[in-house]
Amino acid sequence: MAFDELVQNLGGEHKQVVPVTVFIAFLCLCLVISHLLEENRWINESITAILFGCLSGTLILLGSRGKSSHILRFNEELFFIYLLPPIIFNAGFQVKKKQFFQNFFTIMLFGVVGVFISVFVVTAGSRWLFPKLRFDGLTARDYLAIGTIFSSTDTVCTLQVLHQDETPRLYSLVFGEGVVNDATSVVLFNAVQKLDVSRLDRQTAFHIIGDFCYLFSTSTVLGIVTGLLTSYSLKALYFGRHSSVREIALMVLMAYLSYMMAELLELSGILTVFFCGIIMSHYAWHNVTESSRVTTKHVFAMMSLVAETFIFLYVGMDALDIEKWKVSKLRYGHNVLSEPIRSHVIQTKILYITTQGLLYNMVSHNNSLVQVIIWWAGLMRGAVSIALAFKQFTHSGVTKCEINATMITNTNIVVLLTTLVFGFLTKPLIRYLLPHGGSTNQIYRESTITKDDQMNLPLLSMVESATTNLRRAKDGISMLIERPVHTIHSYWRKFDDTYMRPIFGGPPNSL
Amino acid sequence: MAFDELVQNLGGEHKQVVPVTVFIAFLCLCLVISHLLEENRWINESITAILFGCLSGTLILLGSRGKSSHILRFNEELFFIYLLPPIIFNAGFQVKKKQFFQNFFTIMLFGVVGVFISVFVVTAGSRWLFPKLRFDGLTARDYLAIGTIFSSTDTVCTLQVLHQDETPRLYSLVFGEGVVNDATSVVLFNAVQKLDVSRLDRQTAFHIIGDFCYLFSTSTVLGIVTGLLTSYSLKALYFGRHSSVREIALMVLMAYLSYMMAELLELSGILTVFFCGIIMSHYAWHNVTESSRVTTKHVFAMMSLVAETFIFLYVGMDALDIEKWKVSKLRYGHNVLSEPIRSHVIQTKILYITTQGLLYNMVSHNNSLVQVIIWWAGLMRGAVSIALAFKQFTHSGVTKCEINATMITNTNIVVLLTTLVFGFLTKPLIRYLLPHGGSTNQIYRESTITKDDQMNLPLLSMVESATTNLRRAKDGISMLIERPVHTIHSYWRKFDDTYMRPIFGGPPNSL
Repeated sequence: MAFDELVQNLGGEHKQVVPVTVFIAFLCLCLVISHLLEENRWINESITAILFGCLSGTLILLGSRGKSSHILRFNEELFFIYLLPPIIFNAGFQVKKKQFFQNFFTIMLFGVVGVFISVFVVTAGSRWLFPKLRFDGLTARDYLAIGTIFSSTDTVCTLQVLHQDETPRLYSLVFGEGVVNDATSVVLFNAVQKLDVSRLDRQTAFHIIGDFCYLFSTSTVLGIVTGLLTSYSLKALYFGRHSSVREIALMVLMAYLSYMMAELLELSGILTVFFCGIIMSHYAWHNVTESSRVTTKHVFAMMSLVAETFIFLYVGMDALDIEKWKVSKLRYGHNVLSEPIRSHVIQTKILYITTQGLLYNMVSHNNSLVQVIIWWAGLMRGAVSIALAFKQFTHSGVTKCEINATMITNTNIVVLLTTLVFGFLTKPLIRYLLPHGGSTNQIYRESTITKDDQMNLPLLSMVESATTNLRRAKDGISMLIERPVHTIHSYWRKFDDTYMRPIFGGPPNSL
Repeated sequence: MAFDELVQNLGGEHKQVVPVTVFIAFLCLCLVISHLLEENRWINESITAILFGCLSGTLILLGSRGKSSHILRFNEELFFIYLLPPIIFNAGFQVKKKQFFQNFFTIMLFGVVGVFISVFVVTAGSRWLFPKLRFDGLTARDYLAIGTIFSSTDTVCTLQVLHQDETPRLYSLVFGEGVVNDATSVVLFNAVQKLDVSRLDRQTAFHIIGDFCYLFSTSTVLGIVTGLLTSYSLKALYFGRHSSVREIALMVLMAYLSYMMAELLELSGILTVFFCGIIMSHYAWHNVTESSRVTTKHVFAMMSLVAETFIFLYVGMDALDIEKWKVSKLRYGHNVLSEPIRSHVIQTKILYITTQGLLYNMVSHNNSLVQVIIWWAGLMRGAVSIALAFKQFTHSGVTKCEINATMITNTNIVVLLTTLVFGFLTKPLIRYLLPHGGSTNQIYRESTITKDDQMNLPLLSMVESATTNLRRAKDGISMLIERPVHTIHSYWRKFDDTYMRPIFGGPPNSL
């Protein structure tokens, strides 16, 4: 069945035209509706897209008389090769580098160590719980995969409510944790795939950690090298001399190339493209013409927005996928399994964030407010979970096996519920926790404008505004973390000014 | 075989990663090389890409020990759904509307009537010539398809040498003829596909012409309606208020939607997206924020450049496709058939352009210089020919039939040779014909800068600079065409100012 459908999709003219047209039309509608509902900030593109997906899925289900609810088969290749790279690259390109690197250790603590704990807890928990629910048939690798699938988070909803300029540190923590979390989950997922699960002993854990460190470092280096190469060629050849279109094309293509090369070398494309984005915004962005700067900034944001909306639209539509429901052990009325899994995951997450919080508290003496928000942001599951689930439990998006279908539907339900429920509640929660951080669109727009100035700031810098310093002092971050970071900062700044900037471009760091 | 390869392409992770990585890397190299060779303007992206394609095809051929020379199977869906729309939309978006509409009748004469004559001559010629070369087995529909395939032209090479500001009228004629020619060929090709070839009589011709008029008008109307709808929503909702990223995304998606809707309704997507581009640059472009204006202008140009380079890269690579060569009747040493076809096509084109030239002369008393250049531009065959040939003679890019494989290889050879040979000679020819139109990069860059001012000009306008008028007077365009067009212009301008601009946006036409 998979065969004919694939051929149908590629062969006949109308098989590809119809779904693409419908998806593009829905994307346009999502954009318009999100714009109209922007004022109250309760709803964002993700939630609109999910609701739209559900609605259209229902209509298609009724139209096809209960035969099918989706018009485009989910393809994890589509997701990992075409939709994910622009989202992650844009994250790296637009991140406030100063904040990100100042909180680098904290982010790593939450992102990397947190995911390791979460994977362990979820895997052990599933192994204990699933047989009790008479849900058997999963292999050891499946259990480990479930651990990684439910350890990736989706911080988009939270980030849309937070303001980068009002709470810069919180924003960068949530944001950084999100990216590092996703990258760690995917790297771990790939490490688990290669694992010899027939003999699991103490060495396995070291093996996984070793693999992880190798993947993490090589991917980062690849991203940095690609970014520097692009910056150097843009500076040395000065493309803008003839046409600014060519330099924009080169930046887009090189960014994408870094991701694809990482995938080709079986590294983590997410990390590579993220660091490539950071390097490009730090050096390459200064070597292009003024119009190219404006264009690249907006193009990357646009591609990211479209890809993100597309994914959520699909998640909404696939939630009603009747074929998988029929195949899976679950029935409409008595959805016995997904609830336990969901609550289980949430409990696990609570557990792990609490552990993390304790760790974090020990080193930072921080107040609990930040923890609560990071914990909240960590509750939502997103597109990465879906994609990993499809990779583990299907073959080209199709499955006939009862157990696999159940796992896919469960992942969809978890993503759907967490995004809808927690997404809607995020704004009231943050308003309650941070009464001064009310949603004023004025500030939101300013954050876009000040991007230009921000781009000129050094990658790591001590220079900060008085207000930020004041806020930081309030937050009370321990000097234990602060001191070494600042020393590294100043060394890096000197090195950047003396060697890097003259070769790769960009204005010297202001003192 | 097609089945397993398709599944392999989608299923295994590395099957799609490798070709995409290689193609992206080659695209980057093409961009860099074209930039380095920009100074002399002999070489452009198209030629670089074709040569690169040939080179890499040879390397892959040697690497795979003569088994295969291509890493990405040509898919006419890929071409018609993803690569062609950005090229044509950008053409409409960047066209100098004033010049285009002032020469509207001339362009139509060359584009539409010319293609009809060309199709007739090529079809009749092939029918007479092929059996004499002992090349049988083609149906009546195949012959008609050959006519349309070899009637589409590729004007990219010529346009890269001409300067929009030095010779605006010539530029718009060559440009307009190219777009209308492509659109007409595709529309005719589709009309031929639906034809009942079992009984060909005098009614058939009327049937084709009737179909053509219907497709032409409905496609145009669809494009205009979509463009106006986008302009209206952008103006009414004022997206820039919240985020300029959203309005850019909306413009890109709506442009693409217009193309897909046309394909869905079995109209001509090329015409639709072209007119959508014209309307968007006339109205919608004025309703967005300043940064969105800069971005859209460059993004559309960038997407067009990448798509074009991609196509030519493929054409170069596919020329060495050993499978088709083996299947086809031709052998490497004695390529008996392609030469006759090629010379035949060129002769036909000469014939048709001469006929056209006579027609044109009768109404315009024009000098022969413009004719020669338009004739020259009409000699080159491009990506549209390839795509149509694949559509007619293969199933999902694969063919086992001897005759079909021969037709594909022949089309590839014709495109390759005409682009390389005539592409290289275009600059010397135009330099010889237009000594004042030397290639100064200064002017080229100015043409990019003055785009802003140009965007503010009315869609159809009498207002022209003194120099342009002088040049026009020199060119000696007959008043027969000029008068009615100018009358329409002034009426349109009044209508535009009074009703259209207030609703759909844009500054009032300056008097």
